[in-house]
Amino acid sequence: MMDNDMTEYRVDYFLSAAECNAQQEISLPLLAQKLIDISTAHASAIGVGYEHLLENNYAWVLSRVAIELERFPSINKPYSLITWVEDVNRRYSERIVEIRDENDAVIGYGRLTWVAINIVTRRPADLTPYLDNITPSKRKCPIERFPRLGPIGAPDRVTMYQFQYSDIDFNRHVNSTRYIQFILDRWTLSHFDLNRVSRFDISYHTEAHFEDVVEVRCKGDEETQDVEIARDGAVCTRARIKFCPRSVESVASR
Amino acid sequence: MMDNDMTEYRVDYFLSAAECNAQQEISLPLLAQKLIDISTAHASAIGVGYEHLLENNYAWVLSRVAIELERFPSINKPYSLITWVEDVNRRYSERIVEIRDENDAVIGYGRLTWVAINIVTRRPADLTPYLDNITPSKRKCPIERFPRLGPIGAPDRVTMYQFQYSDIDFNRHVNSTRYIQFILDRWTLSHFDLNRVSRFDISYHTEAHFEDVVEVRCKGDEETQDVEIARDGAVCTRARIKFCPRSVESVASR
Repeated sequence: MMDNDMTEYRVDYFLSAAECNAQQEISLPLLAQKLIDISTAHASAIGVGYEHLLENNYAWVLSRVAIELERFPSINKPYSLITWVEDVNRRYSERIVEIRDENDAVIGYGRLTWVAINIVTRRPADLTPYLDNITPSKRKCPIERFPRLGPIGAPDRVTMYQFQYSDIDFNRHVNSTRYIQFILDRWTLSHFDLNRVSRFDISYHTEAHFEDVVEVRCKGDEETQDVEIARDGAVCTRARIKFCPRSVESVASR
Repeated sequence: MMDNDMTEYRVDYFLSAAECNAQQEISLPLLAQKLIDISTAHASAIGVGYEHLLENNYAWVLSRVAIELERFPSINKPYSLITWVEDVNRRYSERIVEIRDENDAVIGYGRLTWVAINIVTRRPADLTPYLDNITPSKRKCPIERFPRLGPIGAPDRVTMYQFQYSDIDFNRHVNSTRYIQFILDRWTLSHFDLNRVSRFDISYHTEAHFEDVVEVRCKGDEETQDVEIARDGAVCTRARIKFCPRSVESVASR
């Protein structure tokens, strides 16, 4: 799974029918979860995993995720993820995940920003003790960096939601990938038949907990929508979702 | 993955943190999905997969699932599933999935009843053409057979829900494992801290679709709850969930 110098890490998968959305592709929340999983696995393999950070009372926290794809991995086919660190300093690690289809052709990228916090003080932690373990790859990622997502102002529409038991993750916070699901659920099944997500950016701010009530606020046009999920005035996440029309062929074959 | 005569089929997994619930165990909906996935994979391997049934315009339909565990696979640990057919006839296939922990000790079982339908007529299909391919194992499964789940009558409590985009699966129906999630979400986070599911039975009746509004009806006592999910008077699923108190040690270590 690893090249000799461990700067890159690859995992091969098979996309089962049960893991697919209504368009018979990997769902975006599941893809995001796989990007998180491979980040975690590679970090552990090079000595900077959760278990290594815990020795200094540190923990990794996911700050931002960008995903951009030409097409999504498809039902009952293999796909692969290859990850490397593009940039690291004492404040954050910027990690790339390349997404390949069943023919090993590159179909997209994920870009994840990880920061560390001190779990006692809950303040940002200094990654200096771990920098020797992390060798950035020379490979560059062609997708754009994360955009600046500011307050969206007056939303076009607002939906209320109260977090349930199954939304909560092993850290007792709302699962990072659940926010992606709530955002996608603002659109209809037929919208996703006619359009696919071409790019998705999400930044994580304040954590939400069991039974918190949030507003999901959307604003934008057909192509680009900005979304904010907030409780009591505190923003939990901000996201930008870009849609592009599916080709006529792919719609007709449905 | 397979013994020589292919009557049994094994897959080894690693439970990532991102796949865990708030109790740092595999979530029940995800475990159910893994049971479905390994059933599908084994069926394909012995020549009775979806692709083989489709040659006769047949498709497998999941009719019932029972899951009973002493404990759940745990965070950041390997676990394994081993499946075999216990009983098969022209009307249905009854499949067992044994669940093993990181030490290869058996910690529970799944029992799944699969029927075939003719996708043109939507009527039950005769499995006779496939019976030669399916050799039931002589291994028996110690957990009880599926109970008869009748109408629950007047419920103790009712919750309304409208199905969203992300609830819909590759077949354009509500995902089988989503029903399990909605059922678990009737209880609080602290209920699951103090209790675990010891047995879960679910039967699938009428299919639900995007934007259908359903009632989730619950009735029972501390130990056993019967649940019905219904739309417009038609029952989509019936389930029975059994809880047992977690040991004092496991609660204290949280």
